Amino acid sequence: MKIHILGAASTQFGELWDQSLTDLLQLAINGSIKDAGVEPGEIDAVFVANMAAGLFEQQLHLGPLVSSMFDHQPPAFRLEAACASGGIALIAAQNALLSGSCSTALVVGAEKMTDVNAGRATAILSAAADQSREYGSTFPGLYALFAQAHMNKFGTSRQQLSSVTVKNHRHALDNPQAQFHRELSLDAVSSSALIADPIRLLDCSPISDGASSVILSTKKPNRKVPTIIGRGHAQDSLSLSQRKTLTSIPATTKAAQQALAQAGLSPADIPVAEVHDCFTIAEIMATEDLGFFAEGEGGRAAESNLTTYNGQLVINPSGGLKAAGHPVGATGIKQVAYLSKLLREQKYKYGLTHNVGGTGATAVVHIIKA
Amino acid sequence: MKIHILGAASTQFGELWDQSLTDLLQLAINGSIKDAGVEPGEIDAVFVANMAAGLFEQQLHLGPLVSSMFDHQPPAFRLEAACASGGIALIAAQNALLSGSCSTALVVGAEKMTDVNAGRATAILSAAADQSREYGSTFPGLYALFAQAHMNKFGTSRQQLSSVTVKNHRHALDNPQAQFHRELSLDAVSSSALIADPIRLLDCSPISDGASSVILSTKKPNRKVPTIIGRGHAQDSLSLSQRKTLTSIPATTKAAQQALAQAGLSPADIPVAEVHDCFTIAEIMATEDLGFFAEGEGGRAAESNLTTYNGQLVINPSGGLKAAGHPVGATGIKQVAYLSKLLREQKYKYGLTHNVGGTGATAVVHIIKA
Repeated sequence: MKIHILGAASTQFGELWDQSLTDLLQLAINGSIKDAGVEPGEIDAVFVANMAAGLFEQQLHLGPLVSSMFDHQPPAFRLEAACASGGIALIAAQNALLSGSCSTALVVGAEKMTDVNAGRATAILSAAADQSREYGSTFPGLYALFAQAHMNKFGTSRQQLSSVTVKNHRHALDNPQAQFHRELSLDAVSSSALIADPIRLLDCSPISDGASSVILSTKKPNRKVPTIIGRGHAQDSLSLSQRKTLTSIPATTKAAQQALAQAGLSPADIPVAEVHDCFTIAEIMATEDLGFFAEGEGGRAAESNLTTYNGQLVINPSGGLKAAGHPVGATGIKQVAYLSKLLREQKYKYGLTHNVGGTGATAVVHIIKA
Repeated sequence: MKIHILGAASTQFGELWDQSLTDLLQLAINGSIKDAGVEPGEIDAVFVANMAAGLFEQQLHLGPLVSSMFDHQPPAFRLEAACASGGIALIAAQNALLSGSCSTALVVGAEKMTDVNAGRATAILSAAADQSREYGSTFPGLYALFAQAHMNKFGTSRQQLSSVTVKNHRHALDNPQAQFHRELSLDAVSSSALIADPIRLLDCSPISDGASSVILSTKKPNRKVPTIIGRGHAQDSLSLSQRKTLTSIPATTKAAQQALAQAGLSPADIPVAEVHDCFTIAEIMATEDLGFFAEGEGGRAAESNLTTYNGQLVINPSGGLKAAGHPVGATGIKQVAYLSKLLREQKYKYGLTHNVGGTGATAVVHIIKA
């Protein structure tokens, strides 16, 4: 049974002081319904991805909040997997579609992160780590461990990390909804404030508000739309102390292999991908773990412009988490929304999305066909 | 395709000072695997129900936390729907099973609620309400509105409310894992401290720690086990101000009708049910909304002993949320776990479970066959 992506929409990503979580959800939903050309009454299940509205906004139970935006109040589910909440909501929606319990599902993700101060936001984001074993760790600190290990083992350089940011900020100029529309020089990135050695401010994705929505259906539409032809979903330990490697995210490799096998494709068939660049080192590791470049070659690939237009494949045309923004619950859905629009324009035949939770405890990969 | 309940287990429910959230999850999982007689490696997906570990324990991303309890780290999902988190995790698991994406799924729910003080716990529980519209409301306050309306419209009495507590505390004597093993008199309930008129302390389910787990499979087992033959899942507004009635929970009726229709049964066929008695008035409304008694007759039915042994049907043989305890994420799963054990003992042919989120914004009903 085929999963058709009937429509997709994202809100502006950024510091949206005048929009609430509910406003953002409603905007993305309205946009995707309009884009899909379906009647609201055709939506027969709702999947809501959100990491931490309970912590940011004192609001749990988002399923009925979204369901009640429809007169017929379809059954609703809220999924959470830290920064991979969007990815697993997509998987849960496909399970429901393939089970026959619904035939057209709305998947919406949102996060409203700017209503608390930076200290509180940091505390909330660290709630996805396994605090009992990694007390005191922060996300930049954990990704700094990855970066140190990758630099030591493969010679990945400061300049290579910076080249990821420079590329993603340049790509974001094409995405009107990106949080940042500002080109950066390698020097600007390399000399930005040190956060957790070697990670600097401009290696980090930002704190963002935003929402994204896609409408998936097993019903054949009367026009050509992209379809999901492969999906992968893998787990690993929450704590890095339980891992065998600090230079890759094994769950990414596992999820990618599942998704590519299901699609009958190899990494070389993929011309475009939205990958989870919460930090620059994360994009470099992702391009290796997904099979686009050999182990240890991700940094050199970025530096040599193999991951942009006229290179080997385009990584993060939206600007990625770094420049388009990272409203956590929205991210995994925005990746599919953004790529599905590019694929509808027949710019590419296939696309891959890659969404990671925490430091790789959850990884979700999708393959989309134009 | 049939959904077999291969095994089930719950931990002790109560104030478990010496057990962490992880301990409770592990205990329930081990118990259900042993009860099912499966190898851990046969579990090919994990569904985790939890309302608010992010708020109670600063721990999100429970999917991989549970997945990592298995050597093969199966794909994991965390579901949240306030007090119906367990119910929707069961629905999501069945979607996955029926889609063919897995064949044996573990569904586990847990909540660790006693590591914060009572004020903080109250604030966390109210995060499931729609705060933007009902600022200042508490759960007892909202259920007090239901109780006032029900008393005014149908003459439901203080004594009738108390009879629910007395029965559930008596039933809990049969459940070794119940939080309370203490018979109460009608007078003791009716004279307990007033919380939100007319709701008194002994009308309320307690703050509890605990976990429950069931193992569901589409594979036919080599022995007779109960099967899920009907399921219903319905939504309503988070806010009571959007409802047309304060004397019933329409989502319960909708979910029950779906589940009964799927099972091909009527309410009169059901000899035993675990219903969502977060407050005594909730049980009275549930027995009406589920179709066991006519509208307005739930209070009199409880008072006349129609909801206990040798009555019309047995409501809450476990002691319900009131006396067995209400570790929020566990509750919907414990209902199925408890009934499936009674059904395995051939005490009843059919059983019904009923799990509610918030004040009825989510309702999930299952019908189980021995």
